[in-house]
Amino acid sequence: MSDAPNRQPMTDGLLSALIDRLGTDHVVTDTSDMVPYVQEQRRLYSGRALAVVLPACTDDVAFIVEQCREHGVNIVPQGGNTGLVGGGVPHDSVVVALGRMNRIRDIDPTNATLTVEAGCILQVVQDAARDAGRLFPLSLAAEGSCQIGGNLATNAGGINVLRYGNARDLVLGLEVVLADGRVMNGLTALRKNNTGYDMKQLFIGSEGTLGIITAAVLKLFPLPRGTATALVGCDSPHQILALYDQLRSQLSDTLTAFELLPHFAMDAVLTHVQGTRAPFDQDYASYALIELTTPDADLDLNARLESALADAFENDVIRDAVIATSSTQSQALWRLRESVAEAQIAEGASIKHDISVPVSRLADFIEKADAACRSILPECRICAFGHVGDGNLHYNVSQPCDMDADAFIDLTPRFNRAVHDLVADMNGSISAEHGIGISKRTELRRYQDPVALAMMERIKTALDPQGLFNPGKLL
Amino acid sequence: MSDAPNRQPMTDGLLSALIDRLGTDHVVTDTSDMVPYVQEQRRLYSGRALAVVLPACTDDVAFIVEQCREHGVNIVPQGGNTGLVGGGVPHDSVVVALGRMNRIRDIDPTNATLTVEAGCILQVVQDAARDAGRLFPLSLAAEGSCQIGGNLATNAGGINVLRYGNARDLVLGLEVVLADGRVMNGLTALRKNNTGYDMKQLFIGSEGTLGIITAAVLKLFPLPRGTATALVGCDSPHQILALYDQLRSQLSDTLTAFELLPHFAMDAVLTHVQGTRAPFDQDYASYALIELTTPDADLDLNARLESALADAFENDVIRDAVIATSSTQSQALWRLRESVAEAQIAEGASIKHDISVPVSRLADFIEKADAACRSILPECRICAFGHVGDGNLHYNVSQPCDMDADAFIDLTPRFNRAVHDLVADMNGSISAEHGIGISKRTELRRYQDPVALAMMERIKTALDPQGLFNPGKLL
Repeated sequence: MSDAPNRQPMTDGLLSALIDRLGTDHVVTDTSDMVPYVQEQRRLYSGRALAVVLPACTDDVAFIVEQCREHGVNIVPQGGNTGLVGGGVPHDSVVVALGRMNRIRDIDPTNATLTVEAGCILQVVQDAARDAGRLFPLSLAAEGSCQIGGNLATNAGGINVLRYGNARDLVLGLEVVLADGRVMNGLTALRKNNTGYDMKQLFIGSEGTLGIITAAVLKLFPLPRGTATALVGCDSPHQILALYDQLRSQLSDTLTAFELLPHFAMDAVLTHVQGTRAPFDQDYASYALIELTTPDADLDLNARLESALADAFENDVIRDAVIATSSTQSQALWRLRESVAEAQIAEGASIKHDISVPVSRLADFIEKADAACRSILPECRICAFGHVGDGNLHYNVSQPCDMDADAFIDLTPRFNRAVHDLVADMNGSISAEHGIGISKRTELRRYQDPVALAMMERIKTALDPQGLFNPGKLL
Repeated sequence: MSDAPNRQPMTDGLLSALIDRLGTDHVVTDTSDMVPYVQEQRRLYSGRALAVVLPACTDDVAFIVEQCREHGVNIVPQGGNTGLVGGGVPHDSVVVALGRMNRIRDIDPTNATLTVEAGCILQVVQDAARDAGRLFPLSLAAEGSCQIGGNLATNAGGINVLRYGNARDLVLGLEVVLADGRVMNGLTALRKNNTGYDMKQLFIGSEGTLGIITAAVLKLFPLPRGTATALVGCDSPHQILALYDQLRSQLSDTLTAFELLPHFAMDAVLTHVQGTRAPFDQDYASYALIELTTPDADLDLNARLESALADAFENDVIRDAVIATSSTQSQALWRLRESVAEAQIAEGASIKHDISVPVSRLADFIEKADAACRSILPECRICAFGHVGDGNLHYNVSQPCDMDADAFIDLTPRFNRAVHDLVADMNGSISAEHGIGISKRTELRRYQDPVALAMMERIKTALDPQGLFNPGKLL
């Protein structure tokens, strides 16, 4: 597959210009050395790069863009290459891998900002903030290897969105290399700035199709000094939703995580993941993992959570609850949630959807989607888990135990259509946090408002008229 | 002044098409009836409209846009016309006034969203949210007459930004009529949605130059059930900043307002505003008005605030403090802050700046800007008040008592240059919350990153190639 048949192959001129600038160590052309850069981590998508180049600074990036543009060669910007939709996979493009640009340029605790280069690993950003007595709240499974530039380019979500928002909400300023090789210097660290269109917003979530993010100013928050964690058992997603509504009203922003696990997920985790223990003596249809945090060291969060859950129990909203009394217990509860993906792999093939609907419709969605999926394959096993407060479900369908995996996977289009049609009926999103990349391009054209889609195309043409950046992705 | 010499005057064909669609009552052409629509409320800017049209629905707006485009007539979208930079003032354009489109279409307490038409008055939105047990936190002086569409088109700020963000942060979805008359249907009520470029961001803060916002989905929050208000006296803005830093770390998101008043402002309020009383027995150089709120009815905010202020007192960060013990006392403290603009008028002419810098540089900024202004006019009186947590100052300069007002106003360019140059040195913004409109167009060209500016122009051309919307504003 070539995403840009009209583009040129690598030329000696381009190659030598890149090597002259970056040094041979930082222009990778050996096919085996390029492997980590040309395939998605689960190997669902793979491609071919003309070269992988490793800039050391923003000026290097601008130089690379100018050279590639001049030689008619496309560019795929790449962070930690941990995306799940193929957005970083090249097809006869030059990969610009940002990993060497990993400096934290500045931390300002009073302004609560951190200025960082795009190639810095998310966990390093988190640690630097913590060392300065502040919190950078973006947190997701890949945080040990994903890079902040990629997080911003894909508007990453994760487990703290309920309280702190998506990656978009955590950015005050961006430095971006544009398709014409110029650098937009938007590294302002301001909470208020009404001087024209907010250009940074275009690049956040654009999946590398409009420019290369080279640095960012991130928002920091007061460091939490107290935490309370609980797991509750309920009879249905409707009860889970009622509990969420109650806790959000009572506890507001101390509620930082509210994660749904269905019975299937809990059962799979307890069966397949070593060292996990059942939280209750009996099974429930639905579970919620709840976490409160506060920067106020004097606040007794366990007492507040216990009192709120006692209310819920009395009102028949929950059936059982366990509150962690130590950080070890808290970690054990989180492990149940974090092991769902691993446990689901052990249950065989699965068809995944990353959807969102209005929070108020989440339980209805699960009910209707379950019915729709069972009408396609009665024995399919639904694993709908995720972030209740964001209305975001990883609505995954696992194969029946005794079915051939390939035969099951062949049903993907039918499951996609059923799930995504329902999402569209509920005015939801077919890609809540993972993005479009290669995997959902066709679905995007089916479900996106055509006026918005046409406007996106006009924006792409206005900012990248040659189609230099990440062709074949998103649009 | 004509902002679009190449555009056409009103034609009979256009007028009759508009009247046929909207009825004579909703197409205003009488000059005296148009007065409220053609001048800014302080009468600093006034213009001329070809007509004022009052659509009742989104389809009406689309029709008006199509007709105006066909007849080559420009459009100024207008909400409550309460802006301070002339952004809503027409120059030989048709004014599209959104006030008839004022329905609240939907409230969803569990999803914490409210869907509203653009012409709804901000206070009506606030009240509707409160009636549903939720908070819509946008709050500013004009809330009794400004309209939500205008608030979004200008990315309004106000007194709750510290805790809840700017207008931009309070929007989940937008419906917008584009320059080609098509309607972007982006009224999604989703917390997570990564399906391409986030087009709504372009219209927020675009001051009506890219499209006409006709409806929005707004974020709601848990309703506060507890409040604590205090006023403190300090020796300098540096102490105020240290106090802010301490309270933000200790109290996090319960801290919803932290407003700075200098001695000059307090003195002017106590002198000129009836019914105000001095909060302390002696004067201080700087004051801070502090408010905490919480949805948690069991939390004793007064005690927490008292304890935090006691720490500050012991550490020599503050000199005195008063905590309101009733809502009447709280309102009296707020009145001191809210009367600053009125009191400043009584002190004669003033030259105003709406700037922001990183929060950590706020006290330095005041020190340096004061020195720069005094080097222009030693007897000038500085009234730098505003939103500390946002780094946003209304850095106003009042005339010396015995100076001629016009002679003072003649110094405006010199004060602007001194203040804005310092803002630029500190990587700040020359328009923190009021926008660009007519009043800061030249300043924008001077201080904005030229690459970002060029990109804005490309976006304008891509989305409004004929220059139909709000010509002569912002860009």
